[in-house]
Amino acid sequence: MSFKINNKEVFVFAIGGLGEIGKNMYGVQYQDEIIVIDAGIKFPEDDQLGIDYVISDYQYLIDNIDKIKGLFITHGHEDHIGGIPFFLQKVNVPIFAGPLASALIKGKLEEHGLTKSTEMHELQEDTVIKFPKITVDFFRTTHSIPDALGIAVHTPQGVIVETGDFKFDLTPVAGLPAPNLQKMAKLGDEGVLLLMSDSTNAEVYGFSKSERYVGDTIHKIFETIKGRIIFATFASNIYRVSQAVDAALQHGRKIAVFGRSMESAITNGRELGYLNIPDEMLLDANEIKKLPPEKVMILCTGSQGEPMAALSRIANGSHRQINVQPGDTVIFSSNPIPGNTASVNHVINLLAEAGAEVIHGKINNIHASGHGGQLEQELMLRLIKPKFFMPIHGEYRMLKIHTELAQRCDVPEENCFIMENGDVLALTSDTARRAGHFPAEDVYVDGNGIGDIGNIVIHDRQMLSDEGLVIVVATIDYKKKIVLAGPDILSRGFVYMRESGELIAQAQKRVFHIIKNSLNDEKTEATEAILKSAITDGLQDMLYKSTERNPVIIPMLISASV
Amino acid sequence: MSFKINNKEVFVFAIGGLGEIGKNMYGVQYQDEIIVIDAGIKFPEDDQLGIDYVISDYQYLIDNIDKIKGLFITHGHEDHIGGIPFFLQKVNVPIFAGPLASALIKGKLEEHGLTKSTEMHELQEDTVIKFPKITVDFFRTTHSIPDALGIAVHTPQGVIVETGDFKFDLTPVAGLPAPNLQKMAKLGDEGVLLLMSDSTNAEVYGFSKSERYVGDTIHKIFETIKGRIIFATFASNIYRVSQAVDAALQHGRKIAVFGRSMESAITNGRELGYLNIPDEMLLDANEIKKLPPEKVMILCTGSQGEPMAALSRIANGSHRQINVQPGDTVIFSSNPIPGNTASVNHVINLLAEAGAEVIHGKINNIHASGHGGQLEQELMLRLIKPKFFMPIHGEYRMLKIHTELAQRCDVPEENCFIMENGDVLALTSDTARRAGHFPAEDVYVDGNGIGDIGNIVIHDRQMLSDEGLVIVVATIDYKKKIVLAGPDILSRGFVYMRESGELIAQAQKRVFHIIKNSLNDEKTEATEAILKSAITDGLQDMLYKSTERNPVIIPMLISASV
Repeated sequence: MSFKINNKEVFVFAIGGLGEIGKNMYGVQYQDEIIVIDAGIKFPEDDQLGIDYVISDYQYLIDNIDKIKGLFITHGHEDHIGGIPFFLQKVNVPIFAGPLASALIKGKLEEHGLTKSTEMHELQEDTVIKFPKITVDFFRTTHSIPDALGIAVHTPQGVIVETGDFKFDLTPVAGLPAPNLQKMAKLGDEGVLLLMSDSTNAEVYGFSKSERYVGDTIHKIFETIKGRIIFATFASNIYRVSQAVDAALQHGRKIAVFGRSMESAITNGRELGYLNIPDEMLLDANEIKKLPPEKVMILCTGSQGEPMAALSRIANGSHRQINVQPGDTVIFSSNPIPGNTASVNHVINLLAEAGAEVIHGKINNIHASGHGGQLEQELMLRLIKPKFFMPIHGEYRMLKIHTELAQRCDVPEENCFIMENGDVLALTSDTARRAGHFPAEDVYVDGNGIGDIGNIVIHDRQMLSDEGLVIVVATIDYKKKIVLAGPDILSRGFVYMRESGELIAQAQKRVFHIIKNSLNDEKTEATEAILKSAITDGLQDMLYKSTERNPVIIPMLISASV
Repeated sequence: MSFKINNKEVFVFAIGGLGEIGKNMYGVQYQDEIIVIDAGIKFPEDDQLGIDYVISDYQYLIDNIDKIKGLFITHGHEDHIGGIPFFLQKVNVPIFAGPLASALIKGKLEEHGLTKSTEMHELQEDTVIKFPKITVDFFRTTHSIPDALGIAVHTPQGVIVETGDFKFDLTPVAGLPAPNLQKMAKLGDEGVLLLMSDSTNAEVYGFSKSERYVGDTIHKIFETIKGRIIFATFASNIYRVSQAVDAALQHGRKIAVFGRSMESAITNGRELGYLNIPDEMLLDANEIKKLPPEKVMILCTGSQGEPMAALSRIANGSHRQINVQPGDTVIFSSNPIPGNTASVNHVINLLAEAGAEVIHGKINNIHASGHGGQLEQELMLRLIKPKFFMPIHGEYRMLKIHTELAQRCDVPEENCFIMENGDVLALTSDTARRAGHFPAEDVYVDGNGIGDIGNIVIHDRQMLSDEGLVIVVATIDYKKKIVLAGPDILSRGFVYMRESGELIAQAQKRVFHIIKNSLNDEKTEATEAILKSAITDGLQDMLYKSTERNPVIIPMLISASV
């Protein structure tokens, strides 16, 4: 913890979200008041084996819990709300969120048994929340989930604006509101000290397509299809779900829903008024077969090729209620997130082999990004007209390009700050400076365990997955210096043991000799640690020579005396 | 004149600009106060031969001259200011215009000797002009000429916004201001009754490229060129001129300027601070040869292939001071306006034949439109949030698409009005209706003559250009019923007379007989009119049989008595 702030300065920091896509969590502090914005998770990288989620080190907030006025949520995506249950376990503060985010958060709280202990406030765009020194209000943006909000934190030194994730969808699907340009422009007119803006698509030239164009495409596709339609998309993208639902209803198709998150999206969406589906148009799984194929749309999760999602199970024939039949058309209304391309392709292949037509992301306008391109980032900069600029929500190169866009929009270069998680930016009404840093490292969540997985464990898991595992078991009488039982050798993911009897036998011999030599070494007393180290080294050496592999070697020595 | 307005209604109309690209001129009237916006010309179509310009019938404004409070100018392009000298000759009212438009208008006034008789007011974006019932103010937009303004007319029934020509250039070239989004959003926030918005690019999906990208491209091209650079663009696009100038200066090239409008653009641009060219970097024509080719840029008019412009004369070798030499690179920083493609291609061919490299519009980013695409039109709609919408500045299909965009931006279909020139739209604070029509037909300007050219003249010119002309001259003594001299036959553009002696001799004979027969007809007295008609019909018949052509036949009969 090494940063210095004077009492006049307002300061901002990221707990997560800088230098990465994921686990967004930002803070604005003025004296004894802290506003926390979002508490996301990041999904693990491919090499972070067995990790369910990554969150950030909350220590700074834990240490300053008495100052935190609330956790304010921009929207209901996992990289903004997924960390809430873990955060609340350490830092129980009131949560303020829009209607859809509130519904999604409540689901999480129930799941984690946190409903009773948590203070939830549902807010609207025009909600204003006043604390003694800081006032927080909101402006409506558009994103790939409804109820996306930007947040304005009014401090005595000036206004800090955090955009949340946004695009400027000027023509959103029917009934849903456009971005509130007037409110953003008004903030700009009145003067904004610092803009913290979504950098996701800073590398993408242009203006993202309106969700409306996707709707037009979906309708056109529906017109041409005679068989069943299986429509897969992100459950959280209620716009997209709503467009698929509208197209189905217009074409007289009843809707069957598969996948837990899709089911709850439909339930939430109907409750909050985003989805308009008459009860009689919803199908139970067992009713599907009673209807002709042209009267059915199956709406499901799995557009990212997730192995356990409905679509993957339908594709590989392991779904209880549904399998692919010739004449089916499967629509992927999504682009594979980088890293998921292989699994998506795998599912596409399975579906095609089973006789389905597959329509996916290569087709124009079947998907639109939820994040604005460069022109939209510039439009935000021009509307908000900040004195200082700090790009957020992006990897380094995205943040970098975003600062270049800011400079084109008349923010001086010296007023642009590319920060890292834990960096502190301190501002007065006319100055900004880097004030230091506090720790905000990755924390791994494995099952329900938070932070008990460190980098060494991850490294081990990598080793295990690379080369496999050899376990050596032996029972030793340290006093008599004899091996009472074993050594036995067991391996997993290393060699096929039945066919490697000789290698295993050699290894047993080698270990036996190593133990015996160590026990009989007169210069050094053979402790368990020394024995283990000798076994590991000796066996590793031998196995590498025979196989050119480096399995993880785990000696398990049982002490006994006879 | 058949429209009915009640005294409470504010009404708007177009004198020109609807159903066409050109001669923009709009009016807003409340009781005894009329605000006129722009007074443009349209360039004639290919079939309007010999016409210099087309303007509109100003009769409604002439009849209501005492009500007109002023002519307000959105920007300095010809289709918005070109009609001013003709308008002032009929309707002398004060003019209000931004700095660059003022400079350009002053040039016109001088040319037409109208300087002393005209009241000019130079306005800035924050100028507010108050009349007893109407107040007019302005908002900065961006277009392919600096100082582009939108106009807000505040009436007792509500605010009427006319955008002028616009794009949203969020990153204009250095030093020039971005569109004033805040002011537009504020108008929207306070409530706008009617938006009249530029429809030029309503058929173009997307967001137009920023002028900055053109600058980047120009710089990259300059880096690769070793010889002289001849840079042709619209003189009025001072952004583009400034980018070419900047690139030249950065690459150590001095600048020679050719073409009257380019010369005055450079003069105006330097005076108004849009162009920063040190005196010593400007070249006289005779200095060009003294410098090595890599130290020279020639900036000229003619990017549309205009036959009399500098570039065409350079290309065809008829320029007094400059001709093309191998190693020259000619850059067309423009797209051909439809109709000019053939002449542009002709100039490109001539240049290439003379050994020049030619870089033109097919290259990405060497030109950017000055008009916003659909996304920018939607952005304007979302910023202004009008109750009623009337697309302007476009042909019918553009106006139509623009109303569809408006509906996507939540303007109800019944609140969108596609009007024609002379149509009157009458509004109260919560109603709008079509109230009738007054004449606003095309008026042709030929040289300095306004409106003395009608459709018959235009038709004749078409005939002349199609088939040529045959003149018949004869001197006739009507009393004695004899031909005193002639008939002589003269033709232009019909047949090559030297090689058609026989045809001409036959024609002479035929005419002689026609005259004689008519003079001797005892039933009808041979008046000049009857003779002329007989000659025309008879000769037309004969010539068509011989040549299958229908030249314009002009009989000139001189009456004499001996």
